[in-house]
Amino acid sequence: MKEIFVKDLQANQTVTTTFLVKFKEVRAKKSGELYLSLILGDKSGELEAKMWDNIQDLDSSICRDDFVKVKGMVQVFRNRPQLTIHKLRKCREDEIDIADYFPKTTKDVEVMFEELLNLVDAVQNSYLRELLMSILVDENLAAKFKQAPAAKALHHAWLGGLLEHTLSLCRLCRLVASHYSDLDVDLLVSGAVLHDVGKIDELCYRRSFTYTNEGQLLGHMILALDLVNEKISQIEGFPRQLKTVVQHLIISHHGEYEFGSPKLPMFPEALVLHCLDNLDSKLEAMNAILRNEATADGYWTAYNQMFGRPIFKGFKENGQAHSEEDRDIKEPSQS
Amino acid sequence: MKEIFVKDLQANQTVTTTFLVKFKEVRAKKSGELYLSLILGDKSGELEAKMWDNIQDLDSSICRDDFVKVKGMVQVFRNRPQLTIHKLRKCREDEIDIADYFPKTTKDVEVMFEELLNLVDAVQNSYLRELLMSILVDENLAAKFKQAPAAKALHHAWLGGLLEHTLSLCRLCRLVASHYSDLDVDLLVSGAVLHDVGKIDELCYRRSFTYTNEGQLLGHMILALDLVNEKISQIEGFPRQLKTVVQHLIISHHGEYEFGSPKLPMFPEALVLHCLDNLDSKLEAMNAILRNEATADGYWTAYNQMFGRPIFKGFKENGQAHSEEDRDIKEPSQS
Amino acid sequence: MKEIFVKDLQANQTVTTTFLVKFKEVRAKKSGELYLSLILGDKSGELEAKMWDNIQDLDSSICRDDFVKVKGMVQVFRNRPQLTIHKLRKCREDEIDIADYFPKTTKDVEVMFEELLNLVDAVQNSYLRELLMSILVDENLAAKFKQAPAAKALHHAWLGGLLEHTLSLCRLCRLVASHYSDLDVDLLVSGAVLHDVGKIDELCYRRSFTYTNEGQLLGHMILALDLVNEKISQIEGFPRQLKTVVQHLIISHHGEYEFGSPKLPMFPEALVLHCLDNLDSKLEAMNAILRNEATADGYWTAYNQMFGRPIFKGFKENGQAHSEEDRDIKEPSQS
Amino acid sequence: MKEIFVKDLQANQTVTTTFLVKFKEVRAKKSGELYLSLILGDKSGELEAKMWDNIQDLDSSICRDDFVKVKGMVQVFRNRPQLTIHKLRKCREDEIDIADYFPKTTKDVEVMFEELLNLVDAVQNSYLRELLMSILVDENLAAKFKQAPAAKALHHAWLGGLLEHTLSLCRLCRLVASHYSDLDVDLLVSGAVLHDVGKIDELCYRRSFTYTNEGQLLGHMILALDLVNEKISQIEGFPRQLKTVVQHLIISHHGEYEFGSPKLPMFPEALVLHCLDNLDSKLEAMNAILRNEATADGYWTAYNQMFGRPIFKGFKENGQAHSEEDRDIKEPSQS
Amino acid sequence: MKEIFVKDLQANQTVTTTFLVKFKEVRAKKSGELYLSLILGDKSGELEAKMWDNIQDLDSSICRDDFVKVKGMVQVFRNRPQLTIHKLRKCREDEIDIADYFPKTTKDVEVMFEELLNLVDAVQNSYLRELLMSILVDENLAAKFKQAPAAKALHHAWLGGLLEHTLSLCRLCRLVASHYSDLDVDLLVSGAVLHDVGKIDELCYRRSFTYTNEGQLLGHMILALDLVNEKISQIEGFPRQLKTVVQHLIISHHGEYEFGSPKLPMFPEALVLHCLDNLDSKLEAMNAILRNEATADGYWTAYNQMFGRPIFKGFKENGQAHSEEDRDIKEPSQS
Amino acid sequence: MKEIFVKDLQANQTVTTTFLVKFKEVRAKKSGELYLSLILGDKSGELEAKMWDNIQDLDSSICRDDFVKVKGMVQVFRNRPQLTIHKLRKCREDEIDIADYFPKTTKDVEVMFEELLNLVDAVQNSYLRELLMSILVDENLAAKFKQAPAAKALHHAWLGGLLEHTLSLCRLCRLVASHYSDLDVDLLVSGAVLHDVGKIDELCYRRSFTYTNEGQLLGHMILALDLVNEKISQIEGFPRQLKTVVQHLIISHHGEYEFGSPKLPMFPEALVLHCLDNLDSKLEAMNAILRNEATADGYWTAYNQMFGRPIFKGFKENGQAHSEEDRDIKEPSQS
Repeated sequence: MKEIFVKDLQANQTVTTTFLVKFKEVRAKKSGELYLSLILGDKSGELEAKMWDNIQDLDSSICRDDFVKVKGMVQVFRNRPQLTIHKLRKCREDEIDIADYFPKTTKDVEVMFEELLNLVDAVQNSYLRELLMSILVDENLAAKFKQAPAAKALHHAWLGGLLEHTLSLCRLCRLVASHYSDLDVDLLVSGAVLHDVGKIDELCYRRSFTYTNEGQLLGHMILALDLVNEKISQIEGFPRQLKTVVQHLIISHHGEYEFGSPKLPMFPEALVLHCLDNLDSKLEAMNAILRNEATADGYWTAYNQMFGRPIFKGFKENGQAHSEEDRDIKEPSQS
Repeated sequence: MKEIFVKDLQANQTVTTTFLVKFKEVRAKKSGELYLSLILGDKSGELEAKMWDNIQDLDSSICRDDFVKVKGMVQVFRNRPQLTIHKLRKCREDEIDIADYFPKTTKDVEVMFEELLNLVDAVQNSYLRELLMSILVDENLAAKFKQAPAAKALHHAWLGGLLEHTLSLCRLCRLVASHYSDLDVDLLVSGAVLHDVGKIDELCYRRSFTYTNEGQLLGHMILALDLVNEKISQIEGFPRQLKTVVQHLIISHHGEYEFGSPKLPMFPEALVLHCLDNLDSKLEAMNAILRNEATADGYWTAYNQMFGRPIFKGFKENGQAHSEEDRDIKEPSQS
Repeated sequence: MKEIFVKDLQANQTVTTTFLVKFKEVRAKKSGELYLSLILGDKSGELEAKMWDNIQDLDSSICRDDFVKVKGMVQVFRNRPQLTIHKLRKCREDEIDIADYFPKTTKDVEVMFEELLNLVDAVQNSYLRELLMSILVDENLAAKFKQAPAAKALHHAWLGGLLEHTLSLCRLCRLVASHYSDLDVDLLVSGAVLHDVGKIDELCYRRSFTYTNEGQLLGHMILALDLVNEKISQIEGFPRQLKTVVQHLIISHHGEYEFGSPKLPMFPEALVLHCLDNLDSKLEAMNAILRNEATADGYWTAYNQMFGRPIFKGFKENGQAHSEEDRDIKEPSQS
Repeated sequence: MKEIFVKDLQANQTVTTTFLVKFKEVRAKKSGELYLSLILGDKSGELEAKMWDNIQDLDSSICRDDFVKVKGMVQVFRNRPQLTIHKLRKCREDEIDIADYFPKTTKDVEVMFEELLNLVDAVQNSYLRELLMSILVDENLAAKFKQAPAAKALHHAWLGGLLEHTLSLCRLCRLVASHYSDLDVDLLVSGAVLHDVGKIDELCYRRSFTYTNEGQLLGHMILALDLVNEKISQIEGFPRQLKTVVQHLIISHHGEYEFGSPKLPMFPEALVLHCLDNLDSKLEAMNAILRNEATADGYWTAYNQMFGRPIFKGFKENGQAHSEEDRDIKEPSQS
Repeated sequence: MKEIFVKDLQANQTVTTTFLVKFKEVRAKKSGELYLSLILGDKSGELEAKMWDNIQDLDSSICRDDFVKVKGMVQVFRNRPQLTIHKLRKCREDEIDIADYFPKTTKDVEVMFEELLNLVDAVQNSYLRELLMSILVDENLAAKFKQAPAAKALHHAWLGGLLEHTLSLCRLCRLVASHYSDLDVDLLVSGAVLHDVGKIDELCYRRSFTYTNEGQLLGHMILALDLVNEKISQIEGFPRQLKTVVQHLIISHHGEYEFGSPKLPMFPEALVLHCLDNLDSKLEAMNAILRNEATADGYWTAYNQMFGRPIFKGFKENGQAHSEEDRDIKEPSQS
Repeated sequence: MKEIFVKDLQANQTVTTTFLVKFKEVRAKKSGELYLSLILGDKSGELEAKMWDNIQDLDSSICRDDFVKVKGMVQVFRNRPQLTIHKLRKCREDEIDIADYFPKTTKDVEVMFEELLNLVDAVQNSYLRELLMSILVDENLAAKFKQAPAAKALHHAWLGGLLEHTLSLCRLCRLVASHYSDLDVDLLVSGAVLHDVGKIDELCYRRSFTYTNEGQLLGHMILALDLVNEKISQIEGFPRQLKTVVQHLIISHHGEYEFGSPKLPMFPEALVLHCLDNLDSKLEAMNAILRNEATADGYWTAYNQMFGRPIFKGFKENGQAHSEEDRDIKEPSQS
C-alpha cells in the first residue's frame, strides 16, 4: 500500500512515497546548472515537483510512465501542493500496486460486471445473447473490459470507466424501451454492450491513457467490427442480416459524419442508441467538470473547450434549493 | 358525422360528402374553357379533385381553408383516389364537426391531460408547481394545449400532438431522473411542460397547420417566455433566480444556435431536457415516416429530406424476427 | 441480339424489340379510363413510352426491372424519341442478353483485368501480393469485380466501371510513386486495388443500379474491411501491423469525415491514395458531364448539382485550338 | 412603340404585337402531331403561349432571344394571361425598340449619371479622381455602365440597375463618412464606383440576362481589376501603393471567402464599403420581393430561396400605421 | 483624486497610490517562501506588480476586484511599467472615486444622453415614443444606461460605451432612413435604442467587466425582452402587433443564428438595424485595434482573433495622404 | 563563410560567430536591472540567447532582422542549445553571406531552373510558350523566382522552394497528362508555372519570411494576374479567350472559396491543376513534419495544427519493411 496520496499532502510536510512520472524535463538554471522538473501523480491527483541539486547522479533512464520513489518537502500555493525533491530513484515492479496510480471507478467492478451479465442474459434473441456472452466470458476480453476507461479524457476517463458507461447505457436503453413499446430491446442492449467495446484496444491504459497505434489509425468503431466479426464467425448459423444490423448499430452510434460515423442511424434502435450514448457521455462529462471545480469560488466553472462554454454550478448554495431565496447576485466568477 | 372519409373511398363510387379545401386553382383547358383543380382533405387523408364543367356558376369566393360539400365520382390510380366533381357548394358552419377534418392523436386527450396534471402535481418545489398549474388550469390555455399540434410537419403534427409530445417527454424525464440521482426532477418536468408551450400561439391549427404572424416573427421559445413571464408575475415571491433558470431551460432546449436556441444548455438539467426532447421528436418523426410507407414495397422508405437519408424498415418480414432466416437479399426498392 | 437500340430510333418508325422497364405507372385519362406510362431503356439510353388502350389485358405483374417486348410507333420531339405502344408482353429469360441493357465500359474487360493482375504481380511485398491475388483469383469475386460499376451515378457508373476506375488509379499510383521516390509503391497499389472493392457488394447491378441493404447500412468501406479480414485470416503469418495499415488505407480514402471516412489519412501513402482517387473520380465525372452535353449548343453545360457549377466546354470550336482565333463571344447559352 | 404590353392584356382579347422569346420548345400531342410551347416577354412581364396548329410552316430558326410578331387570343387563369397563337413570324431589327423588352430602372439614367459625375468630381485625391473619370468618360464604358443590370437576378436586376446601385452606394458612403469623421471619403467613393464595374462585362444584357464566358470564368471582381489596371497604366505617376489599396477595396467587397472575395476587408474603408454594399443590395432585394407580391393576399411573401425565409409585409393594412389597431390575426398566408 | 495613473508612471519612480486588483496569486519562490503576484489597474491601463517579502502580514482577504493602496518602486521594460511593492493595504470605500478605475467614454455622457432623449422625442409614433421614454426616464435604468459598457471586450468596452454605441446607431439609422424613403424611421430608432438595452443587466461593470449570471444564462436579447415586456404592460393600449414587431427587432438584430439570434430579420427595418449595428460595432472594434497599436512599428497590427486577420494601418506615414508618394516598401512588420 | 552553425553547437563550447536576430526583447531582472533576450538563427536552426550584463553599452539600434556577431558560451538542455552572450555587435554587410542564414532547397537551383526552361520550351502553343518564357527570361523575375520560398510556413518554406514546388508540379502535370490523353498538356504546364508565380511578390524573403504589404492585401493569385496581364500585353496577338482561360487557371487553383479562390475549377485542366497542386503541397508538408520529428521517439509526430491530426511515422523500424515482423506494440508515444 502506498504511504500517502497527492490529495492528502500537507504544507511543509516531509514525505517519502512512490509516484508515477507523468512528465519529465531537464532544465537549466541561469547559472547553467541543470535541474529536474517533473509532474508526478497517483490515482488521487497530480503535483509538480522540482529537484534542484545533484541531478547528475540520477538514473538517466527515468522517464515518463516510470514509477519512482521520492523523498521531499511539500509546499502549497494556489491551493495546490508542490514538491521539492531531495532523493529520487526508480521503483522495482514489486514495490507497486498499479491500482494506486490511476483514477478508478468509484463503483465495484465485479458488481457492475455481474449486473451486465444479467442484462445480457435477459436478451431473448439467442444469437445476440450468444454473441454478447462470447465476449464477456472471454477471459482476456473480460479482463480488459473491466479495466478500460471509456475515453482518454472528457467522460468516464478512469479505469473501469468503459464498464461503468456501458452498464449505464444498457440500463437507459431498457428504461427507454419500456417507454416506447415498439423498440426491439434486444437490439438496443446489444448495441449498448458493443458500441464502445473497441475501446479495449483503442486505448492504452496500463500507464497514462493514450491511443494505441491501432486505435489512432482505425478507431474504436472499426476495432469493434473486427472483434464482432471474429466472434460471429464462431457462432453456428448467425444470420447474415442480423450481423449487418449489429454492424450498423456500431458504426452509426456517433450519429454524425464529423464525429467519425461512416453511416448515420437508419432505423429507430440505431437512432435511440446514438441519442442515449450522447446523453450519457455528455452528462457525465458535464458532471466531471462540475466535480473538478466544486470547491472553487463562483457560480461558474472555467470556460470548457469541449462544450464551448462555462458550466453553471447552480444557485444551490448552502444546501438550499433553487427557489428558497432571491438574492440579486451580479458577480459570477466567470471571466 | 361526415358521410365517408378519404381513406374509405372506392373506385367508381359516387359520393356526396364534405371536405376541407387544401388547395384551389382555376386552370384553362386547351379549348380555352376553365376548369377547377382542388386538393380536398379530411382527417384521414387528401385527394385530388377536378371539376371540369359549369364552374362559372360556382361561388367564386370558395378558397383554401373553406369547407365544401361535393358530389362526384371516384377513380383510383397509383393506389390513390381521385374525384371528378359534379356538384360543389360551400358548407354552413353547422354542417361541420371540425374533428372530422384534421389528423388527431390516437390517444385520449382528456386521459393524457389528466396524467399530465398528476405529473405536475408531483412536483415538489411549490413555486414551480404553482407556475405549471397556473398554465394548465387556465381554461383558455388548457383548451389550446389540448388541441395544438407539436409541429407544422415532421413530428407529432396532428391535433393533440403537443400534449402527446409533452407528456411523453415528462415521462422520459422522470425515468431518466430515476437513473441519474443527482438530477433535479422538478426542473426537468418543468422544462418538459414549458419547453414547447409557446407552440399554442406559434402555430395556427384551426384550419391547415401554419405559422401565426407572432409564431413566424418570434418563434415558440420567445412566445413561451412571454407566457411564463405573465404567469410568474402573478405568483407571490417567485424567486428571481428560479425564473432565470426556467427561462434558460426554455431558450436552450434546441441545443444548437443553428436550430434557433440563443443560448446552449449550461447545466445538467438543461442538457438532459435538450437530449430527451431531441430523442422524442426524432424518434416520432422516424416512426411517422415508417408508418406512412408501411404498406409500400421494399426495405427502405423514400429518401427523407429532414433526416437526409432513407429509413430502413428492417428485415422483419412475415412477423419473423431479425435472426431467424438468412436470405441474401440484394434488391432494395430504394432508388 | 436486340433488334434496335434507343439511340437508333427514328421518327415515325414502327419497331418491335425488347427493353428493360425503368419506371411504370398506371394513370387515368380525363375520361376515367386508365393508360400506362413507362420509361424503357437499354444500354444506349432511355425513352418515354405510353400505352393508351387495352391495358386491362396486360399482364399486371409487369413492373420495374422486368424485361418486356413491345411493338409501337416512334415519335420524336425535344430531340428525344417517344414510343406509343401497341403491344406489350413480358420476356422470357432466354430472349435476353443482359449486356444489351446496361451502359458498359468501352474498354475490354478481360484486357483490363489482365493488366490489373500484372500490376498486382509486380507487388514486391509477398503478403500484400498474396492478399490482392486471393481476391482477384477468387472466381466469385473476380466475376463481380469485372461487372460492378464504380458508382450508382456520378463517375464510372457503368458495368465494368469499378475495374476501369481501379486500374486507372493503380496506374496513377505507379506514375506518382515514380515521381516521389520515398513512397511505398506496394502500399499504394494495394490501397488502389482494395479501396473500392466493397462496391461489388454495396451496389446491386443486375438490373438498375441501386444500393443493396448491406451497402446502404454499411457502405463500401466497411464491406471492404469484411472482405479483407476474411482473406487475411487465410494467409499464414500476415503481419498484424500490416493489416492495420491496409485497413487504414481503406477507411481513410475519402479523405474527409463528411464523405464518410471515419479516419483521415495519417501517413503519406494514405494521403496520396486519397488525392489520386479524388482526381480520377472527379475528372471522370466532369468528362461524363461534358460527353453528355457534347452535342448541345453553347459553351457551358447545364448547372451540375454535384460540382455546384456548370462546366465549361472550352473555346475549341471547329477543331481549332484555344489560341488560334480571338472572337469576342458574349452570349453563352448558360442560363 | 410596341402595341400592347403583357401587364395590360385582358381575357378574351385578340392581340397583334411583338415579344421577345424567352423559351421555346416543340412538343408532341397525344396524336403525335407537334405543337409549339413558348414563353414570351416584354419589359412588363412574361406570359406562356401555345401554338397548336400549322407549326410545320414556321421559320424553324426562331429560337430563344429572338423577337417575334404574333397574333393570338388571350385567356387568363391563375390571374395570369396566356396566349393561344394563330400567327407567328420573326421580326426585323427595325421593328424593335429594345427598351420595350427589358425591365429598366424607373429613374432617369442621364440624371443619375450626371449625379455620379458630380460625386466623382468632388473627390479630392487627384489620382483617384482621374482614375474614376477615365472610366466614366470612356464612351464605350459609359454606355455599358448606363445599361448594365447590377445582377442576373436578386437585386437591381434591370437595365440601369448597376448605375442605380452604384449611385445609391456612393451617397450612402458620403452619409456614413459624414458620421465617422476618420474615414477617407475619397477611398470610399472610389470603392463604391469601382466595386461592381466589372459587371459591365460579367453579364450579357443585350437579350436575356446571363453571364458572359469571361464573367462565368473570372467574375466581376477580376474583370474590374483588369479594367482598373488598364486605366491606371495610362495615368502618369499613379502611386503604386494607392493602386494596391484600390485593388484591395475591389476584391474584398464581398466580405467573405464563401461569397468569392479572395481577401477580407483589412482596413476601415474596406470594411465600410463591404457593409454598405451588403446593406444596399440586401435591402433592395427584400424590397423587390415585397413589390412582386404586393398585391397577393396575406401577411407574408412566399419562402424566398436567397434569404432562406419568407418576408413579412407588415401589419400596415389600409394605409394605417403599425400601432393604430390591435386585431388578433392568426392566419398568415405563408405555408 | 487618485495620485498618479498607470500611463504616467516613470522608471525608477517611487509611488504611493491606489489601484484596482485585477488578478491575484500567491506563488512560491525556489526557496519555498511565498510572494504575491498581482495585476493592478486603473482607467488608464494595467501593470504587473510583485510583492516579494512580508506577505504573511497582509490582509489575506485581499482579492480580485478589491481596491488597494500600495507603495512601491516602478521599473520599465518592454515599454511597460512594472511595480515592486513595498507596502500594501486594502482601501476604504471613501478613499475611492470609482471613475478613476475604469476606461470610460471620451465623450460627455450627459450631452450624449440629452441627444438621445431628443432623438426619442422626435419619434412620431406615440406608443413607441412612450415606450422608449419610459426606459430613459426610469432613474434606475437611466443610471445604468449611462454607465454600462457595450461589450465585455471587442467594441465600446468602456463605461458609457453602451450609450455611445446606441447614440451612434440612432444617428446612422436616421441618416440611412433619409436615404431610403420607404423605411419607417420610428421603428429603426426604436430598434436602435432597445437592441442592446439588455446589456445593462447582462454585464457587471461595477468592478471588472464580466457577465452576470442572468447575462450568461439568458443573454442581453432575452433580458431586453423582459424589460420591454414590463414597460409595455404599463402603457395603456399598446398595440399587440406593434409589440411583436418591436420584439422581432430585438431578437433578430444579430442577424445570424450562430450569433445567437433565434430569428433572422424578416422585414426591411429589421434588416437595416442588423446591418448598421454590425457596421458600427465592427468599425469601432477595428478602430480600437488600430488605436491600441498606433505607436507600434510597422504597417500591420498583430493578428486579431475576432477578425481572423491583422489590420492594415495604411500607408499614411508622416501625415501624407495615400497617393502622394510611391516608395516600394516590402517589409511589413507583420509576422 | 560562417564559423559554426546552430546544429553543430556543443554544450560548454565557447563560440564566436554571426547570427540573424529573429526576436529581441529587453527584460527586467528581479533586481530591476535589465537583460537582453534574443532568438538567433542561421540556416540550420534557431537558439535562445541571453545577455545578462552590460547591455546598457549595446548598440540600441540592434533589432529583429539584423545580423550580429556574438561571443558566448553554449549550454544544452531539452536537447537544445542555449547561448549566454558575453559580447555582441552589429555586423557589416560585407561580413555576411546571406545563404548562411536561411533554410534553402537541397537541390541545385540552376539545374532546376534549366529543367523548367526545357519543360516550357516543350509547350506547343506558341502564345503560351512565349508568355511563360517572357517571365522566366526576365532577369529580375527569374532572380526572384529562383530565390522565393513557396510559403511562409507549411510547405516548401525555404529559399528556392517556389522553384522546387513549381518544377515538381510541372512534372506531375506531364505524367498525369500522359495518363489521360484528352488533357491539354500546354494548359496544364502553363497553369503549373504561373499558379504560384505571384509569391515572388507576396512574400518577403530577404530576412525572415513574411508577407509584403501587397501580399497581405492582395494575395499571390491577384499578384500573378497583374504580372500575367503585363506580360500578355507585350505579346502581339495573344488571343483574348486564351488569356481568360489562363486567368481562370490561376484564380481557381486553390479549389475552394474558403481557401481564397474566387472561382472554382470549371474545366478539366483547371480541376487537375488544383488536385495536383493540392497533392504536391500536402505531401511535402506531411514529409516536412516527418523529417522534423524523425529522430524523436515514438510512432507518431506531435499533433499538427494544419492537418488537424498527428502523423504516423510507420512501423518501419530498423530499416525493415512493414510486413517482416509482427510485434504487438501498444504504447505509442503520441499524447
